[in-house]
Order: sequence, then C-alpha cells, then structure tokens
Amino acid sequence: MTDSPAPRTVTYTVRVEFGDCDPARIVWFPNFFRWIDAASRHFFVGCGVPPWHETERTIGVIGTPLVDTHAKFVKTASYGDTLNIHVHIAEWRDKSFVQRYRIERANEDGSVDAIMECDEVRIFAARREGSATGIRAVPIPESIRQACR
Amino acid sequence: MTDSPAPRTVTYTVRVEFGDCDPARIVWFPNFFRWIDAASRHFFVGCGVPPWHETERTIGVIGTPLVDTHAKFVKTASYGDTLNIHVHIAEWRDKSFVQRYRIERANEDGSVDAIMECDEVRIFAARREGSATGIRAVPIPESIRQACR
Amino acid sequence: MTDSPAPRTVTYTVRVEFGDCDPARIVWFPNFFRWIDAASRHFFVGCGVPPWHETERTIGVIGTPLVDTHAKFVKTASYGDTLNIHVHIAEWRDKSFVQRYRIERANEDGSVDAIMECDEVRIFAARREGSATGIRAVPIPESIRQACR
Amino acid sequence: MTDSPAPRTVTYTVRVEFGDCDPARIVWFPNFFRWIDAASRHFFVGCGVPPWHETERTIGVIGTPLVDTHAKFVKTASYGDTLNIHVHIAEWRDKSFVQRYRIERANEDGSVDAIMECDEVRIFAARREGSATGIRAVPIPESIRQACR
Repeated sequence: MTDSPAPRTVTYTVRVEFGDCDPARIVWFPNFFRWIDAASRHFFVGCGVPPWHETERTIGVIGTPLVDTHAKFVKTASYGDTLNIHVHIAEWRDKSFVQRYRIERANEDGSVDAIMECDEVRIFAARREGSATGIRAVPIPESIRQACR
Repeated sequence: MTDSPAPRTVTYTVRVEFGDCDPARIVWFPNFFRWIDAASRHFFVGCGVPPWHETERTIGVIGTPLVDTHAKFVKTASYGDTLNIHVHIAEWRDKSFVQRYRIERANEDGSVDAIMECDEVRIFAARREGSATGIRAVPIPESIRQACR
Repeated sequence: MTDSPAPRTVTYTVRVEFGDCDPARIVWFPNFFRWIDAASRHFFVGCGVPPWHETERTIGVIGTPLVDTHAKFVKTASYGDTLNIHVHIAEWRDKSFVQRYRIERANEDGSVDAIMECDEVRIFAARREGSATGIRAVPIPESIRQACR
Repeated sequence: MTDSPAPRTVTYTVRVEFGDCDPARIVWFPNFFRWIDAASRHFFVGCGVPPWHETERTIGVIGTPLVDTHAKFVKTASYGDTLNIHVHIAEWRDKSFVQRYRIERANEDGSVDAIMECDEVRIFAARREGSATGIRAVPIPESIRQACR
C-alpha cells in the first residue's frame, strides 16, 4: 500500500456569521451540517462533476443524500471565525461512499484549531418512477468515480 | 434491573415545510438537526426545567451543547409530512449525557414510518470566565437530573 | 362595498426555538421570513389547494415565488414564545396577488403583542421551457382563486 | 450637495448552495435575508467596527436589529451562482439608519444580472435593564458613524 496515493482533498472555506450563532454566542450546531453539505458538493464540483440538475438530465443522478453521519465537536466556534473544511472520500462502496470532513479554524496568529470531525455515508440517488418525492440509490456512476480520483 | 422503569419520553411534533426541502424535493438533512435540537430542549421543558436564560442566572447553565452525534437516515420525508420526534435520555454520565431520538412519520392511513434515528452526547455548559464566547462543561446539575426522571 | 365579506384568514402557529435566536437572544429576523413562507403555503392548504408537486402535474404551477416584500418589526420575540401568524389575501391582480401577514405573540396572561407586519407581492409560477431553473409568472389559476374565497 | 462624496460601499460575496434552494430549484427567499444580514455586519466590519460582543463591553451595543425592510426580487438565482451584495448606508437618522443593498449575479460571460434590491431601517440596540431578552434603541454611536464615512 505504500504507493497508494493520498486521496484527493478539496477545501471549502466558511466565514461564521452573527446569525449562525445562538444565544450561547457559539455556532448553532445544525449550521455545521449546512456547511458540511456545501463542502460535500464542492468536493464534486472541485473534481469537475457538473451540478445535479445537469447530472439529472444526463445520468439521472439528482444528488447525494445522506444515509448515516457521525460527528465529533471538538471546540466551539463563533462569528468572525474562518473555518476550513477539508473533504475527501475515505471509501468507495458498491452503492454508497464514505465522505470524511475535518473542520479547522484558521486563527489570526497562524495557528489552527480542530473544530469538528465528521464521517458520512452517502449514496448517489435517482428519482423513483411514478413518485414525486421518492428516491432510490444507484450504483456509483463510473464517470464520477473516475473524476474524483 | 428488572424493576427499572422505562425512561421518560417526550415527543416533539414537526410539520415539514416547502422551504425545508431541497431541489431533490426531500428534506434537506441539516433541517433534521434543527428539529432534533428543538426536541432536545423541549424534552427539558417537558420535564419542568426552565429556559436557559433563567438557568444561566440561577445555576450558571447556558445550554446543552453537542459533543458527538450519530444519525441514521432511514426514509426520506417531504413537505406536508408530520414528524414525531420521540426523545429520551439513554444514559447519564458524570459530565455528559446521551440523548436519543427516533423520528417517525405519522401517515394519513394511521401507519408509521421510521425516518431517522439519532444518538447524541451533550454536556451542560457554563460560560468560561473572562471569555465572551468560551464555554466549559459542568457536572450534571442534580436539580435537572431529578426533574428528568 | 359595504356587504363585501371579510377575506378568509388562516392562522399558522409557531413555537420560537433556542436556535431561532441569535447572540442578542432575540429571533434572528430571517427566521420570520421562514415562518411567513410556511404561513403563505398553509393559507393555500387551508383553502384546499393541493401541494405544489401536485399542482405542477395538474396545472403546471410549481409555487408562489415572492416579487416584493415589505415588513415592519414591532416588538422582538424570543425562544419560548408562541407566535400566531394571521394570513389573508389583500388583493388579487392579473398575474400577482398581495398576501398580508400579522404576527402576534400569545402571552401567558392572555394578552397579545404585535410582533411583525408584512405585505408581500407573489406570483404563481411555472417552469420556463428548456430551462432547469428558470420560472415564469402565469395568470392566477381560477380554480385556486375560487378556493381561496 | 454636488461635492458630496459617494457613500462608502462594501461588497459581500456569496456562493449559492444546493441547500439554499427549494423544490422549485431556486433560492428559497429567506436565505436572501440571511445573506443580507451577513452583508450588513460585514459593512461595519469593513469600516473597522469591532464585533458586537466587543461593542457590548465597550459601548453597550449588542447589534443592529431590523425595524423595517422592503425588498424587490428581480430575477431568481440558483445553486452554482455567485452573488455580490453591494451595501451602503443611504441615510443616518437620530436613532436609526437606512442600509441599502443591491444583489447582483456575476455571470461567467462577465455580464451582471440584478437579482434583488433591499432597503432596511435598523437601529443600534442595547440590552434593556433587568430583562434577559429586552432591547432598546440607543443614539447612533458617534465612533461608529465616523468609522463608516
């Protein structure tokens, strides 16, 4: 395994806003998942995968819904902070994949604080026939898998 | 342990709205965490614990920030759905507790669909001296633990 | 006009949550628009209009996007508050309508506080041919206008 | 007034995300207000005004709550779009000010689309004595007014 290259990592940067924080003055945690979802999509954009409304037309894929998520909150963040979300794909499975996130705060003195870690299982989804809101998992599209190497 | 009573469960009900859904027409998953956070607080309200701005004054507790969360998404939901979030405390530890959630959809025919399951580790937090946004874990307040039996 | 009946009013009720509030401990104002949008749709649901994914199939209407909004914030609200949003249609135009909102807080002593007032201009929208995200205004569907009397 | 300089304008840039869009595949409008609120604060940050948790300590100001807002939605936006929000202060009053926003989409071909225009009336707020969630308007702090010239 020594010659296995490190997986491609894409970084998504977020400014924490006043309205992202709650009365305890720290980031209200659902906002972390908002950013993680954006980082997930930016990973694919960074790999050259088109927007989902295009893939819906070409290969039927409408997005990458979440099946399972596990997150650890290490330090709190607040408004004014700049967060870097480093994303890579830790594992490809037949009909799902593991996307891994490390959120770090870039401090003004150049140091970095770990803020959050998250492992997700996602699928590639297509619409279910004859249903307005139903979706189903499809095999990992080979074109996308190649793009993300 | 055979005579240990079932833990107290509080149910929080949510109507899924159009704006909670994404272009795939299903609930955008960070909204589940928004509802889970509300259900967490409603559990304590349902047990008679005062709002956090009152406990901040009386016992210094400003809220119950999240340390760790693990969620499984079983079925999708969409707007028009009514979701019941059943909450209980699965474990009390010294400085943290495990809060467990089961989200179910109440269908019009009386049946129920499992939508999501979630286990969280949370702490009771107080402000850190001399810091506008720093927080620290405090031991579980006995008054709150008693209220939640 | 003396015998013109009062327009139909539908009330949508909201519980303000901890996460709806910002570090000033009051409702972060974009959340009022979140609730107003839900109240807008509930007005139509209350009048018997089907969900937009059904009207998309039957009459091509995908929703009622906003063209113009004007809101006055009278008093602040915070978590623990219960808000009633009273909605009616103040005016029907050819290709748009004015939807009017009055948000009130129901206090525990039975009194009521005015919190916010809002007037919106909305249209009924259909997808624009050959565009994934383009929309266009359509004439007010007569079936919907009749339902909302 | 012919030699009155143009007011200082600060631009805040936003990437529209998948989760910012609704089932009609366009930006769900409350998200525009989320961005406008961030742009409002960035205007002050761009003028050198410290974060509100610092001004709370120094001059008692906890933020700039909204009193009135009026917005026009010109064109829809969708995910993948980059939006520039141009902000300036159109008028200073005794205890309030008018903050004006112009949201434009920067298209890939170099052209620009008007997306939204918004005029807000905001105040500078301090906490009301003896109230956890009450706020009151204070006269425009001269230090802030000078900073924003």
